[in-house]
Amino acid sequence: MGKKLNDIGIEVNHILTVSDNAIEIKKALDYALKDSSLILVTGGLGPTKDDITKKTLTEYFDGELILNETIFELLKKYMESRGRPLLESTKQLAYMPSNADVIFNKKGTAAGMWWEREGGKIIVSMPGVPYEMKAMMEEKVLPEFENRFSNETIIHRTIMTAGLGESIIAEKIKDIENGLPDSIKLAYLPNLGVVKLRLTARGTDEAWLKSEIARIEKTIIEILPKYHYGFEDQSIASAVQELFVDKGLKLACAESCTGGQISAQLVQIPGSSAYFKGSVVAYDYDIKYNLLKVSQNTIEEKGAVSAEVVEAMAKSARELLNADYGIGVSGIAGPGGGTEDKPVGTVWLGFSAKDRLSSKVIRLPLDRVKNIQMTSNYALHLLLRFVNGENFDS
Amino acid sequence: MGKKLNDIGIEVNHILTVSDNAIEIKKALDYALKDSSLILVTGGLGPTKDDITKKTLTEYFDGELILNETIFELLKKYMESRGRPLLESTKQLAYMPSNADVIFNKKGTAAGMWWEREGGKIIVSMPGVPYEMKAMMEEKVLPEFENRFSNETIIHRTIMTAGLGESIIAEKIKDIENGLPDSIKLAYLPNLGVVKLRLTARGTDEAWLKSEIARIEKTIIEILPKYHYGFEDQSIASAVQELFVDKGLKLACAESCTGGQISAQLVQIPGSSAYFKGSVVAYDYDIKYNLLKVSQNTIEEKGAVSAEVVEAMAKSARELLNADYGIGVSGIAGPGGGTEDKPVGTVWLGFSAKDRLSSKVIRLPLDRVKNIQMTSNYALHLLLRFVNGENFDS
Repeated sequence: MGKKLNDIGIEVNHILTVSDNAIEIKKALDYALKDSSLILVTGGLGPTKDDITKKTLTEYFDGELILNETIFELLKKYMESRGRPLLESTKQLAYMPSNADVIFNKKGTAAGMWWEREGGKIIVSMPGVPYEMKAMMEEKVLPEFENRFSNETIIHRTIMTAGLGESIIAEKIKDIENGLPDSIKLAYLPNLGVVKLRLTARGTDEAWLKSEIARIEKTIIEILPKYHYGFEDQSIASAVQELFVDKGLKLACAESCTGGQISAQLVQIPGSSAYFKGSVVAYDYDIKYNLLKVSQNTIEEKGAVSAEVVEAMAKSARELLNADYGIGVSGIAGPGGGTEDKPVGTVWLGFSAKDRLSSKVIRLPLDRVKNIQMTSNYALHLLLRFVNGENFDS
Repeated sequence: MGKKLNDIGIEVNHILTVSDNAIEIKKALDYALKDSSLILVTGGLGPTKDDITKKTLTEYFDGELILNETIFELLKKYMESRGRPLLESTKQLAYMPSNADVIFNKKGTAAGMWWEREGGKIIVSMPGVPYEMKAMMEEKVLPEFENRFSNETIIHRTIMTAGLGESIIAEKIKDIENGLPDSIKLAYLPNLGVVKLRLTARGTDEAWLKSEIARIEKTIIEILPKYHYGFEDQSIASAVQELFVDKGLKLACAESCTGGQISAQLVQIPGSSAYFKGSVVAYDYDIKYNLLKVSQNTIEEKGAVSAEVVEAMAKSARELLNADYGIGVSGIAGPGGGTEDKPVGTVWLGFSAKDRLSSKVIRLPLDRVKNIQMTSNYALHLLLRFVNGENFDS
C-alpha cells in the first residue's frame, strides 16, 4: 500500500499495527487523525467473532449498522453460486455503517467503507485478505486519491539484477551513486540472489527528471551487463519466458534438491505453457538412474552433486521431454547431508543445448527453504546467460 | 516478532514503520519511548548509503561510532572464506556505537546493538534481513527479556485444519465459541485452504488454563475429524511426511497445472527424501502421452481436466516412480483457458494406491498463483484422507 501511495505522490507518515481490541483501535485512530489527512485501515471485517473493526469504526464515527439490501442480495447470490447456505454469521457482512459510503468487494464477501470527516479527512476501511484489499485499492482508493490530491511528480524506475550481492554492486556503481542529484535517490532491495536497484526522482520538472533517470539507468546497466536482466518488478521466470517465447524455444528441467521449485516458479507466469515442457523431479537416486538414465558409474565416481551428473541430467531432461534447452540441478540444501568436500549449501547447476553443455557450482549460506529458492533464482539467471551464448568455467 | 514477544507475556503496544530518513526515525523513537519500555528496531544496518539507522540511533543516544576490533576480524575472515575482498563500504559494518552493547550476527555481517537507558528502558537494533533478525531474537533478545520480565502465564494452542472455510468452521463450533471463558480467546487464521484455530489463554492459574485449553481443543477436534490434521504451525506437507514415514510408504506425483508446486512444498521439509520419490511435471500435453502413458483416447474423450485423466496420471506416477501412492493433478489455474463447462479454477485431483483409485474436483476462486498454492494444499490434505482409507465421491 505504501508503495502504491508513494507512486501517486502521497507520503506515508506512519504504519501502525494494532490488535483486535476496540480500545486499541480507537487509540490508533486518535493518533492517526492527529497528523494525517488520509487513513487507510485493513482487516477485521470478516464474519467471525474476532472481526470487530466495522463495529468499532462505526461507533467511533457515531454511526449505526443497518442492513444494506444490495450487499445482502450479492451475498445470497455468492453463496448460492457455490452451493453453500447463508449462515447467520455471514449475514452480518451485509450490515453497513449509516454514515459511510460502501466500497463493493469484487473478490470476496466483506465490503469496504469510506468516511469523509471535518477538515477533508478521509478514512477508508478495507478487508485484510491481501488480494481483496489490493482490488479495492486499485479500483477505488488509488484512482480517487490521485484524482483529488496529485501534485508533485514522482518517477520510479527499478533495475532488476541477479547473481551479485548488494555490497559488490554498491562498490561497482559507487561513482554513479556519489554523483546523484539531490532529487534522485537510489535504494538497494536484495532478496535471495536478486537485487533490485530502485531509483526515485521527485520534483516539479518532469522532463528533466525523466531524462536524468534514463541517463543514470543506462550508466548502471553498462556497468552490470551480465547481471541486469529486466526492469520494474519483473521476476527472473518472466524474463526466461520472454526470451524463450521470443526465440521460439522449449525448456525442460531435471530437478533434484530443488524438488520442483524451478518448475513451479516458471509456471506461476501466465502463458508459460507456450515454452515450458515440464520437469522430472528426481528426488530419489533411482529416478536419476531409471528415468533420467544418468549412468550409475558417473554417480558413483563423481557423486550425485557434481558437474558430470547435472550436465547429464540437463541433457536427459532436454531429450526425454523433447525441448531445446535443459536444466539439471543437484545439491545439498541442508540441514543434513553435507560432507567436508561438499558442505551444506553446495549446489551444481547444469545446462544443456543441442550442441553444448556447461555447469557451475554455487555455495549458499542460508537455511533449507531459502537455499532452495536462491538456487532456483540462480538457475534461471544462469539459464538466461547460457541461452545468450555464455559458457561457465564452473 | 510480535508473536514471539506475546508468547513470553510481553504485550506489543505499537508497530511503527518509518522511512530511511533520520528525522522520521528520531520522531518514531520519541513516540515509542513515551509509552513503551522495550523498543525493538529492525533494518538499516547494511553497508549501502540508504542504511542510516546505526548512525541515527548513535546520534540520538549521544554516542559515537568507533571501530570494533572483534567485528573487524570476523568480517575479514567472513570475506576471506568466500574469496571476496573487504570493501570500504563493508568496513563500515565494524564501526559500532560507543555506548551500546554489541549483539554478534551469526548469520550475516551487520551486528546488532543493545542500549539501556534511564527508567529501565531497552532499545535493541537488529538487521532487517529476516533470518538474521530471527537468529538474534532467538539467541539473545527473547531469552534476556524472558529472564527479566516474565510474569503472567500465557498459553497458546493452534489447531490446524484444511478443506473448510472459516465461516463454515465458525458455524460448526459456535456453541464452543459462545461458551469460552473470558480468559480464553479464539482466533481464525485462514490461508489458501488452511484455517488455523488459535486458542490463547491468559491468567495466573496455569494448571486450570492448561486443562481448559485441553478440554476445548478436544471438543473442537471431535467436531472436525476429517478436517483437523495437526497442531501448532504444522504444514500439511509435514503431516504427509509424518504419515508416510510412520507407515513406511513412498509417494510420487504427476503434476500438470501445479507445475511442481506440490513436490516443492513436500521437499521444503527436511527429511523428505525418506518417503518422497519424485514427480513428473507434465506441463505439456505430449508429456502426458509419452512419459506418463495416459491414453490419447482418454484425453480426447474426457479432456485433460477430468477424473479419468488425473486417476491415470496418479497411477502412472506411482508405477513409473516406484511408489506406494501417487497423486495426479490437472486443472485450469487461469487467467486464460477456461470453458463454460470447465471454468477457470476447475481442478481435478486424483489419488492412486496399489488397489484403488479415487478423485475429486475442486473449484477455486482466486488468481493463478493462489489457485496453484491452494490446489497444492487441497491435494496434500486429500492425500492424508485417502491414505487413511477414505474414497471421494468426486
